Amino acid sequence: MTTYWCSHAWLGRDHPDSGVEIQTDQGIITNVKTGTEPGESATRLQGLTLPGFANVHSHAFHRALRSRTQRGKGSFWTWRENMYAVADNLNPDNYYLLARAVYGEMVSAGISAVGEFHYLHHQPGGTPYDNPNAMGEALFAAAAEAGIRITLLDTCYLSGGFGAALSPSQSRFSDGSAAAWSTRVSSIALPEHGRLGGAVHSVRAVDPGSVSEIAEFVAARPDPLPLHAHISEQPLENEESLAAYGMTPTGVMASAGALEGNFTAIHATHLTTDDINLLASSGSTACFCPTTERDLADGIGPSRRLDESGVTLTLGTDSHAMIDLLEEARALELNHRLASGERGHHDAVSLLEMATSNGNEALGWTGSGTIAPGAAADFLTLDMDSIRLAGSQPRDYLEAAVFSASATDVSSVIVAGQQIVAGGRHVRFDVASAMREALGST
Amino acid sequence: MTTYWCSHAWLGRDHPDSGVEIQTDQGIITNVKTGTEPGESATRLQGLTLPGFANVHSHAFHRALRSRTQRGKGSFWTWRENMYAVADNLNPDNYYLLARAVYGEMVSAGISAVGEFHYLHHQPGGTPYDNPNAMGEALFAAAAEAGIRITLLDTCYLSGGFGAALSPSQSRFSDGSAAAWSTRVSSIALPEHGRLGGAVHSVRAVDPGSVSEIAEFVAARPDPLPLHAHISEQPLENEESLAAYGMTPTGVMASAGALEGNFTAIHATHLTTDDINLLASSGSTACFCPTTERDLADGIGPSRRLDESGVTLTLGTDSHAMIDLLEEARALELNHRLASGERGHHDAVSLLEMATSNGNEALGWTGSGTIAPGAAADFLTLDMDSIRLAGSQPRDYLEAAVFSASATDVSSVIVAGQQIVAGGRHVRFDVASAMREALGST
Repeated sequence: MTTYWCSHAWLGRDHPDSGVEIQTDQGIITNVKTGTEPGESATRLQGLTLPGFANVHSHAFHRALRSRTQRGKGSFWTWRENMYAVADNLNPDNYYLLARAVYGEMVSAGISAVGEFHYLHHQPGGTPYDNPNAMGEALFAAAAEAGIRITLLDTCYLSGGFGAALSPSQSRFSDGSAAAWSTRVSSIALPEHGRLGGAVHSVRAVDPGSVSEIAEFVAARPDPLPLHAHISEQPLENEESLAAYGMTPTGVMASAGALEGNFTAIHATHLTTDDINLLASSGSTACFCPTTERDLADGIGPSRRLDESGVTLTLGTDSHAMIDLLEEARALELNHRLASGERGHHDAVSLLEMATSNGNEALGWTGSGTIAPGAAADFLTLDMDSIRLAGSQPRDYLEAAVFSASATDVSSVIVAGQQIVAGGRHVRFDVASAMREALGST
Repeated sequence: MTTYWCSHAWLGRDHPDSGVEIQTDQGIITNVKTGTEPGESATRLQGLTLPGFANVHSHAFHRALRSRTQRGKGSFWTWRENMYAVADNLNPDNYYLLARAVYGEMVSAGISAVGEFHYLHHQPGGTPYDNPNAMGEALFAAAAEAGIRITLLDTCYLSGGFGAALSPSQSRFSDGSAAAWSTRVSSIALPEHGRLGGAVHSVRAVDPGSVSEIAEFVAARPDPLPLHAHISEQPLENEESLAAYGMTPTGVMASAGALEGNFTAIHATHLTTDDINLLASSGSTACFCPTTERDLADGIGPSRRLDESGVTLTLGTDSHAMIDLLEEARALELNHRLASGERGHHDAVSLLEMATSNGNEALGWTGSGTIAPGAAADFLTLDMDSIRLAGSQPRDYLEAAVFSASATDVSSVIVAGQQIVAGGRHVRFDVASAMREALGST
């Protein structure tokens, strides 16, 4: 049993509570009291304590591209060539090292759960490793070392685009068929800090029949899996989907039965009104990755319309141009301000819900992402005395956190009741050194 | 004489040089050598050394609004009411304290010169202080304490909007006439770290005849002053300008002769093609403040078209929703990616020029903002071993700095040959404590 005492903590209201005592036992929150004085044995958390962030969409290896793709002109599609060049060089050993550093950066930024959209399954050329889940297991091991929960969103990737053959770089992504994908996925053994999800890479990479098979597979599991898919990140995908199937990507997913369960549409940037209605009526979730979407020139997605329609919103750092879920959160609101000329589309509380409870739910960590009895003991503390935040008043702490804080203001992170970040530093390893070492080996 | 040895420094090329020795004397760079080993007596600067940043557009007191205006809905115009409420409470004593903390935050972020667009001249109600420049002198004193160069862009503000009376909050901004403004400005005594510029608040606040008087005044000085003005931040300003004068704000400035000298158009968000041509043909400068412009729902300005037309671009943090010139720089590029679907509008070198040499020039610090003999000894060093930057390669350091670094990565700042920031901390005072104290008094 460990007791934490927070000078201020967000318990879901429109402002933080003060003097919050959080009791935990075996990684679970057992009791929460407000208005308390710090007990002698309590670990003090000075600042604003929030539930741990959930990073719903990650491609860990894209971190190697940070600052390497910012010369010259181009588009999402030219960027993808650079990304494939990194993917070509990964193996279970160096991917473990890279993912460990990336997850270390994440947890240092207050992220306690990551959804890894994982399609780097096989050896270059497509031959499986002796252990066909060697790459996924490397990610589990990396997450364990970094002290972060992981949902392995094991991704089916079958074609190079609407029936096209796989390129040489893409060949290692493919299991050959949805059936082979589900056989491999069925053999994954989950560690305590890991969950499983299914993923359809996109309607470019998976035909509608295979989408149906995947949807049936995830729904048939005793504990149905989350299902994620890249949806309409680029206008070209929509055009090609309409040409191939007479339907938008969301329409393809709906008609294949993929929206029936716990579905998350990743990006959801270029949606029609019908798409929004399909996602809303199916109780689906959308995940925005604003810092990636601006980096890759994807556009500004209809997050406000989705929210108003009842679609649950979540956030991800995707390509890791930055790893800062607060920047993702505020960018959702600020992008709409740029586009509309008006302020006040997503308020601080809504944005924090996206970053915490909504995100955990989309990753299958149901009931986490909140500071309440029964939830996982995952929480972070922001230093409200940093140069950026000093002088803000407790009544404005949520707004200060969302609109002015940075990942560097995260001073403490507890995951499953374990202190992983203290004094702003990862307690297990030096993340910057790990990153330097890992990037040297990729 | 002090010698600095930089592991890497940007000397204006498309990548940094290594082993750069910078010799300084009395605040001026006297010699620069590359490919050197560190001399025994040299101060070592490990990381990427850049010329000091110039923050071309600041309203120091807006810093008090950070995180206080993010609730509810609204627009630029409702935000302005909050801003006036802060302005109402300032006097030379508490404004000194606030500006000292804000300038301390700036220099901690690598900013070595600030352009303070200053219109808080008189007592509430409009009566001058015994010393009519008491507020401006408070800003000079604050900048001296903080160790930052300041260009006091003394701002003429005469009406509440296209001939309308001043509101009670606005009354302290006004000198009553352009003639009275120029009389007061003429009496300003400049400290060594200070320069003077003229400013027209906007065509809302200054009639065309008065604009002409101001333009004549700044041009007639022995050393002609820079002239700045808010231009077309909001569509409504354009509409009202056309209704009142049959011209856009840029057109009003041009016909009043304001573009003849060293003119900087602040914001320049909603420009016509004719406006862009007027700014280009007059050799004018534009200043973008992207983090403020997204906060206030202003829109995305035509920075690329201005750049292609030959208008010099600069950057400012304006309302200080954030103080991070690297975030301003990348936002200029990333906003265009969002709007256009393409990457590669402003490259890292162009964005760094905006943040350094271009900005210094617009503030009247001609020849500064570059690491070269004869320039001011103003430079900052980024810690390339931070969690965000570790593992990036020297050939990509400029891209890493612009697209991935944060103000918190600034480890050292030298201004006029004096070390103001060392080990990431201001050497003269604790900025966070100063901010807390100052915000408590406003």
